[in-house]
Amino acid sequence: MTRFNKKKQAIWTYENGKPQRRKDTLAAEEPLEILLRAGSEQHTIAITMRTPGNDYELAAGFLHNEGIIHHKDEISGMTYCVDGNQQEYNSLRIQLTADSMPKLNQLERHFFTNSACGVCGSTMLDDLSERNIPAIPEGPVVDHSLVTSLPDKLRQSQNLFDTTGGLHAAALFDLDGNILAAREDVGRHNALDKLIGWGLLNDQLPFNNRIVMVSGRASYELLQKSYIAGVSIFCAVSAPSSLAVDVAQRFGITLIGFLRGNRFNVYTGNERIKSTEPALVN
Amino acid sequence: MTRFNKKKQAIWTYENGKPQRRKDTLAAEEPLEILLRAGSEQHTIAITMRTPGNDYELAAGFLHNEGIIHHKDEISGMTYCVDGNQQEYNSLRIQLTADSMPKLNQLERHFFTNSACGVCGSTMLDDLSERNIPAIPEGPVVDHSLVTSLPDKLRQSQNLFDTTGGLHAAALFDLDGNILAAREDVGRHNALDKLIGWGLLNDQLPFNNRIVMVSGRASYELLQKSYIAGVSIFCAVSAPSSLAVDVAQRFGITLIGFLRGNRFNVYTGNERIKSTEPALVN
Repeated sequence: MTRFNKKKQAIWTYENGKPQRRKDTLAAEEPLEILLRAGSEQHTIAITMRTPGNDYELAAGFLHNEGIIHHKDEISGMTYCVDGNQQEYNSLRIQLTADSMPKLNQLERHFFTNSACGVCGSTMLDDLSERNIPAIPEGPVVDHSLVTSLPDKLRQSQNLFDTTGGLHAAALFDLDGNILAAREDVGRHNALDKLIGWGLLNDQLPFNNRIVMVSGRASYELLQKSYIAGVSIFCAVSAPSSLAVDVAQRFGITLIGFLRGNRFNVYTGNERIKSTEPALVN
Repeated sequence: MTRFNKKKQAIWTYENGKPQRRKDTLAAEEPLEILLRAGSEQHTIAITMRTPGNDYELAAGFLHNEGIIHHKDEISGMTYCVDGNQQEYNSLRIQLTADSMPKLNQLERHFFTNSACGVCGSTMLDDLSERNIPAIPEGPVVDHSLVTSLPDKLRQSQNLFDTTGGLHAAALFDLDGNILAAREDVGRHNALDKLIGWGLLNDQLPFNNRIVMVSGRASYELLQKSYIAGVSIFCAVSAPSSLAVDVAQRFGITLIGFLRGNRFNVYTGNERIKSTEPALVN
């Protein structure tokens, strides 16, 4: 699965104006077409730019996030398409157990709507709250020192980043700080989709007593996906956006940002973080 | 236009385990619905998560990239929608000069296709070559010292980043290294769309004798947009993906990555970089 995830390239490196020829390794980026099949009906439901590898997880995570599947039993098979005699590693077909195609309205709404004016962040949160997603339970509580131990572990899991310097990562931790799974991709959302797809395919959802950490920023979409997967504590190396904080606040996720070295910011859900030090309130 | 681009938030900051309450500033993230209108027909053609501000440029850049418009004269008006008595700053309507709606097939293909299996990076490049986009001309040639002067200038233009730490940036430079425009957004593609939209609305396209620099990585989509806008030299602070390099190679863009301090890598189009130092070939 990982043989196509990087590519050699001859480049010129300039240092203080001196050009030098050398070989570099690039993170691979290729489109993945996700085809959904139920009975004899088939639709392409997404084309995403991704780093090849863990494609089954990516597709499963995508379908879970869109509310199309909730359990791995709803998938009866996943295969790369065969075009003539050639195996295509960029088209993946998911056969549903169900005989008929699920409603794809919600999915289409993400891209094309004919609604009147009125889309905004708060209506998106309202829509999300109507999807019957189980609430994130109270707890767990983790020590601040566990939180600050995560970045080094995430970094150590980034094998492709080590050779290419060009990938996002998402990792799943248990409450002792053990890394359970880590995935990399040129796309931030894909890395998390792969992680959630791993959870779905391995009966590890929901991620209620789990911590997710990502290598970049925390956007709306990452928090929305995390909520649907039941994540209690979400950590990012960089900043969250305003709407990421809104999702975390509304649905009870602890959102941590700028997690670097011995410091971090807690934007929402501070009750899940334990510290022996007295709080300073300005 | 910039009043909604950030938001205050009370947070907890932990340093060495000590929690402290303080106010933080977040980069705003809100959906923008882009509605296209021709004659009396109207369609929503995109909903994108963006940082509010420069929305007209974002919409114009998006339409240009999709091949829907090529010149600002093709737009007769752009307005935020009014829903009842309330002005909606998240829905933007573009009225085309043309009486009838352009073909949106190509746009739809990005999201939903019913094609047989067969999507891949090289077919995407073939599709792009069939779009009658003017070729990037030979030249210009710039000195290596001009290239290494760009990151500081980009950084100085990032006003929102200074307060939030959470935005991507894209900037346009002339051949003397003067910054002509710089845009920020929570989305990497949006920052570039805004820059290209600025070019379209100010009759500055194509960007043949211009340099674009972005704060993050170089993906396929960023290079594709740059090619359509005629960019000769594209620089990124971080790594390019394999397909970004393929686009640059095929369509004649100079692609520079890992541009930091006094060093950078040239992935394609090294003939546009001038150095007085002799080249070292291993």
